[in-house]
Formats: sequence, C-alpha cells, structure tokens
Amino acid sequence: MEKPQNGEKEELKASICGYDSLHRLLKDNLNPHHFQEVSRLLTGLNGGKALETIALPESATALSVEHGFDLQAFSFCADKELLREPRVVRVGLIQNSISLPTTAHFVDQKKAIFEKLKPIIDAAGSSGVNILCLQEAWMMPFAFCTREKRWCEFAEPVDGESTKFLQSFAVKYNMVIISSILERDINHGEVIWNTAVVIGNHGNIIGKHRKNHIPRVGDFNESTYYMEGNTGHPVFETAFGKIAINICYGRHHPLNWLAFGLNGAEIVFNPSATVGELSEPMWPIEARNAAIANSYFVASINRVGTETFPNAFTSGDGKPAHADFGHFYGSSYVSAPDASCTPSLSRNRDGLLVTDMDLNLCRQVKDKWGFRMTSRYELYVDTLARYVKPDFEPQVISDPLLHKKSS
Amino acid sequence: MEKPQNGEKEELKASICGYDSLHRLLKDNLNPHHFQEVSRLLTGLNGGKALETIALPESATALSVEHGFDLQAFSFCADKELLREPRVVRVGLIQNSISLPTTAHFVDQKKAIFEKLKPIIDAAGSSGVNILCLQEAWMMPFAFCTREKRWCEFAEPVDGESTKFLQSFAVKYNMVIISSILERDINHGEVIWNTAVVIGNHGNIIGKHRKNHIPRVGDFNESTYYMEGNTGHPVFETAFGKIAINICYGRHHPLNWLAFGLNGAEIVFNPSATVGELSEPMWPIEARNAAIANSYFVASINRVGTETFPNAFTSGDGKPAHADFGHFYGSSYVSAPDASCTPSLSRNRDGLLVTDMDLNLCRQVKDKWGFRMTSRYELYVDTLARYVKPDFEPQVISDPLLHKKSS
Repeated sequence: MEKPQNGEKEELKASICGYDSLHRLLKDNLNPHHFQEVSRLLTGLNGGKALETIALPESATALSVEHGFDLQAFSFCADKELLREPRVVRVGLIQNSISLPTTAHFVDQKKAIFEKLKPIIDAAGSSGVNILCLQEAWMMPFAFCTREKRWCEFAEPVDGESTKFLQSFAVKYNMVIISSILERDINHGEVIWNTAVVIGNHGNIIGKHRKNHIPRVGDFNESTYYMEGNTGHPVFETAFGKIAINICYGRHHPLNWLAFGLNGAEIVFNPSATVGELSEPMWPIEARNAAIANSYFVASINRVGTETFPNAFTSGDGKPAHADFGHFYGSSYVSAPDASCTPSLSRNRDGLLVTDMDLNLCRQVKDKWGFRMTSRYELYVDTLARYVKPDFEPQVISDPLLHKKSS
Repeated sequence: MEKPQNGEKEELKASICGYDSLHRLLKDNLNPHHFQEVSRLLTGLNGGKALETIALPESATALSVEHGFDLQAFSFCADKELLREPRVVRVGLIQNSISLPTTAHFVDQKKAIFEKLKPIIDAAGSSGVNILCLQEAWMMPFAFCTREKRWCEFAEPVDGESTKFLQSFAVKYNMVIISSILERDINHGEVIWNTAVVIGNHGNIIGKHRKNHIPRVGDFNESTYYMEGNTGHPVFETAFGKIAINICYGRHHPLNWLAFGLNGAEIVFNPSATVGELSEPMWPIEARNAAIANSYFVASINRVGTETFPNAFTSGDGKPAHADFGHFYGSSYVSAPDASCTPSLSRNRDGLLVTDMDLNLCRQVKDKWGFRMTSRYELYVDTLARYVKPDFEPQVISDPLLHKKSS
C-alpha cells in the first residue's frame, strides 16, 4: 500500500485533543452513564434504542488493521410491518486521503489512489455491502483551489478508467457502486462536469447525475471548472433500493434535498470534499436535517487529509499565497429519517463506515410525522414563482410608528 | 410568585444525569481543553471566536435568583463594514412552565401565568432587551392532547387580554414583543387560530401571523382545534430589524423557513411546545439548519415542564389512558447564519435567554457563502409545479437488469 500523504504529525494536528472523533473523545472522558445520555441527545435513539454495532467478518477487520483505515459498523432498525418484509440494505461509505504527492505524474497519482482503495473496497465487499459510495472526485486531488486548468486532465468520460476499475468490484461483490468523478463530456464539446456515476450490481452503468449547485466560497473555485448540472434530480432504482446523489455543496440547499425526496429517494448519498475552517460546524447539521425533513436516509462522505499543490495560490483573504486547501476533516456518517445518526468516522484517517438500514423506516416515519402531507406545496409553488420574477415584492408589514422617536 | 407546577422531583426526572443542560454536563465533566474543542464542534465559532457572555445588570440577576429562573446571556459578533454601522439587536427568549394546576379556573390559570411571567419580563426589560419572544400559546396549558373543546375558552382576539398585558411592558421597556396565543377570530365566524401577535415598541399591534403547518403526530392533536394559517409568510419591519415567526411544527418544513427568508427576515422566531420523547434529537438540528440555509438568525423557544390534565386520554399507541403529554424540555437557544449557536437554556426550569446579534452578519454570510445566488429557484418552481399535479411522475432511472437473477 502507498504511504498516505498525511503523516503522523498531520494526523495529530488534525485531531481533537489527540482523539480522531468527537464520539471517541466523549466516550473516553465521560463516565458511561453520562456518555449514554450525551449520546442520546447528540445522535438520537433509533426506534427508541441506542444504535447497535455490527460484527464484521475477520477478513474485513484484518484489512483495516493492515492498511490502517478506520472501520466502524452500525445498524439502524425499523418496526416490523404486517404487509411488508423488512428491506435491510447494507451501505458502505469510503473516505480517503490521496496517495502520491500532487507533483507526481497524473497517471501515477490516479493509479496510486486505485491501489489505496482496493483493500478498503475489498473490506466493504467481504462485509457484504450492497451499496458502496466513494467521496467526491475520489480519483484525483481536489485541485480546484489552484484555478489551474491543467488538472482538467484528470477528467474522464462516464465509462472511463475509474468506472472500469469499479465495475470489476461491482460484479465481484454484487454491489452497487456510486462513483463521483470529474467528467469530460466528449459528446458535447468536451465540457467538464462534476458527476456521479451509478454502477449497478452487475457492473452495468445505470446512469449518471451531475452536481446541481456549484460553490463560490473560500477556495472552492469549482465554478472555474464546471457548470450547474443538467440532469435534474434523478432517483436510481437499484437492486437494493431507490437512491440519489446530492453532490457536496448541494447539501446547503434544502430544495435540492427536497427534489430528490419528491422523486422517491430512500437513501441520498452526499459525496463531499470540505475543509475544517469553513464548514465543520455545518457538517453534523445539514445532512441530519435533510434526513428528517425528507424521511429518507442520508449518507455523508468527506475526504481526509491536507493536499499540497505544486504552485502557491492566494485565497482572496488578504493572506500570503500558500499551497494547500486546508484540512479535509473526514467524519463521514449516516443520518436516519427518525433523527438518529451514526457516530462519525475518523477526522484524520481513511475509513470505511458500514451501516445496515431497513428502508421500511422511511415510510414509517412519513406515516408517523406526516411532513409530506402537511407541506402545503401549492403555497410554495406560488411563492417561488413570484420570487423568481424580477419585480418580486417581499411580503413586509412595516410598523407604522417606525420612524417615530422613541419615548 | 406562584409555585411552579413541576417540583424538585419532576426537575430531577427531567434532568440529564442531574444536570439541566447538555452544555453544563459537558462543562462539569470534561477538562477545559476538551470542553473547548467539543464546544467548537458542537456550537461552532462565531467569526472564528467562541461566543462571549454578556454581563447583565444586577437587577436582572437578582430577579432570576429570587424567582428561580435560568438566566443566560451571549453575544454574536459580525465583521466591521465600511459603509454600514453595526446593527446590534438584543433579543430575549422566555421559556416557562404553567403555574396553577390545569384543574384551576381558567381565569385563575391565565392570571397566574401572567404573574409568573412579570419578573421574567422585567428582567428582560431591565437587561435592555429590544425584541422579546414568548413560547407558543404561552397564556394557557398545551391542552390539545386532550381533544376536549372546552380549552378553546382560552382563545382570545388579537387585541385581547394577553396582548394588553404585554403592551404595557412593550411601552415600559421600548421593546418589541412577540406573543403566540390561541386566537379567536370574531370577524370570521369565531374560528380558532394558532397566532403570533407582533407588538411594536410603542405598544401598538404591528400585525399577526398564523401558524402555517399543523401537526398530526403523537398527542399534538392541534388539527382538531385550528387550521393551516392564511397569512402567508409576513416579515415584520420593526424598530429593531426585520423579523418573522415560524410557529412550532413549521420548523420541520424547510420551505416554510425559506419563504420567510425570501421575504427578507433577519431573525426568525420559533415559539414551540414540544416533548422529549418525540422531538428532542431534532431540536438542535432544524433551527440551526434553517439559520445556515437562509442566512438569518433563528431564535428557538420551547416550553418547560409536564402538564397534567383533569381527564385521562389515550395516545393512539395502544398504551393505557394517561393524563399528561410528556415532558416539555425547554432548551431554548439561538442559531446564527454562520452556523454558530448559543448553549441552550435549562431543560427543566423557566428561563430567560438574552442574546446580542449584529444583524449585519446576515448579509455578510450571504456574500460569503452565496446560497441565495446558487439556489437555482427557477428549477424548483418547475419541480414543485409538476409535483403538485395529480399525474406527477417522479424522475426515476431504473436499472434495466433489476429483475435479472444475481450471479
């Protein structure tokens, strides 16, 4: 295996007082009774009970030890129903740092990431994972901070080498795989997209989805490289359930989450690449809110590590030019529609999170809470239709005494 | 002062291992360095710094000691701007239990709540609060669990006795007050609404807003009593900023939050009444997500205590009839658009939370993150318009090999 780019010093810097997750810090520093209550408040109770951990096969744990990746496994339950059998799906999420320095030949960099991922994907496969999702643009460094166009050479067609690499695992393990890549669309003037490819459990390409919302914040200069997606909000009906992909920055947009829900998604994957300084307090909030509001599961993945680039760049913040984007804080996790969630993977190490979820929970929560039925969508069609017109006037009721002097 | 209905035993039962908030448990049981890091992850950093506490006048702290209510005060900051002065507003949130048993005469019950609130409102006034908000239906027990219509006698017109009670404080302290009541609309057939009245800082009634989304979950039998509001999503332009009110269950609806934002709200108040078993893991999520997604402040208030009713009722869960709704867990708090938030008030005691917020932060976060600009509302007008039609067909891409036997 390739040596990860971020070594021990980087890992310590990126830790929380020496712990690699909030969950582990709390577990080690609170008494068990306190920890239990704190966990209940922070991660909820699935069906009234704490989440159970899953025992994984020895082969998977051996791989995690040998290759030094975090491996955690949890199970969400749902109520038994009279007319439907449980529909338990095992989902795997992989977070990883890049492998070679960004100065290496692009072909070598990509191959090294493939090599690094192999044992983690094998661990997922041997754990019986049904649907596996990788992080955003997993096949390259997240080079968009640089604004250099040469990184476009990492782009591939939907059926390119990264897809081919994963197709063999899909067949081998009878596993659906979601692969978020930098796409080059050779049929439309060789333009670039940020695209998730959905590979079926027979190795076939079911379809693709292109990132709907492109950031203009911090060093996320992605709007320099690709445009807003043109694939709508597709839900992919796979052998293991109806899934959708909300790529990275789209998690900040409640309407984006909503549209996947209206199309019937039961699990929405959010492959991401985001850094600590900017978004970390939002990370445990937005995905859970989406799961609650839309009565589906959300699987959140963030890449790990600090990526240093050959040429320094500025960040529009008046500070000197520098060569890295900040720390990608990992912390991948899964949120359930009943407001419970798993603990997060490590903040600074590669990891595989395995989660069992009974998809029956989605409709059970819909029936319990009734969010869809109480949503009054007609009202909002009207509100939004008025809002998008240039002459929109907001509904404001002004205090008629507003400009009277205070007594 | 009236003795609170929930005594010491109730307080202990409703505590978290003897602590009345998550924040206090963590502060007392983690070393300072760990606590600081955990706080950063759980509540974010406002402008890169931990929230500062505000020193309140002695008169306010004396009232909190004498009357036994939790009193906390924090300050959110914003960057200095070249062309705008800071617009710092001091917001007060009050959470409280009822005062007399629900078997007392209705007039006495309401008066006793008035008496109980006086010192807390005085503490807010003497602390220089500019905008004060009370909890949902603060002038009565939350009796909708019973399905008995006699509780409708608590309803008042918009200019009724509860409004009059608060108008005097509005004038005395030059304070905007948001008062969430059970409204009887005498001009429209004496129907009942769940309504927030906005009282201006001169004691005038600026306007009202009626709860948009009515729950059908647990013992929240509110749909038995009143209907979905007909007042749109008004933003009230007051002497201290543009405010809106998202009443209780409306916090589960991202479109409701959105509409207040589109109309220009800078602070959205969420007066609520919700119980532990049902919603507690959602409570720290939804309001923060709304603040992040819409670049405004959210002020969340929940009532406190367990309310026992004269006649037992069933809960549609197969369990025996019982006489209380569960524990209203307080935990009022404020969320900022930059993803930071205050600690919560007590889980089991009355409380006043005072928060300074520079409203300039709203536009600063809009400029930084660009959520409004990247939202593609046109896309969602179309999605929602199609969705509300009875013949809507979801965008689903099925795996053509779906019914092929697994290899």
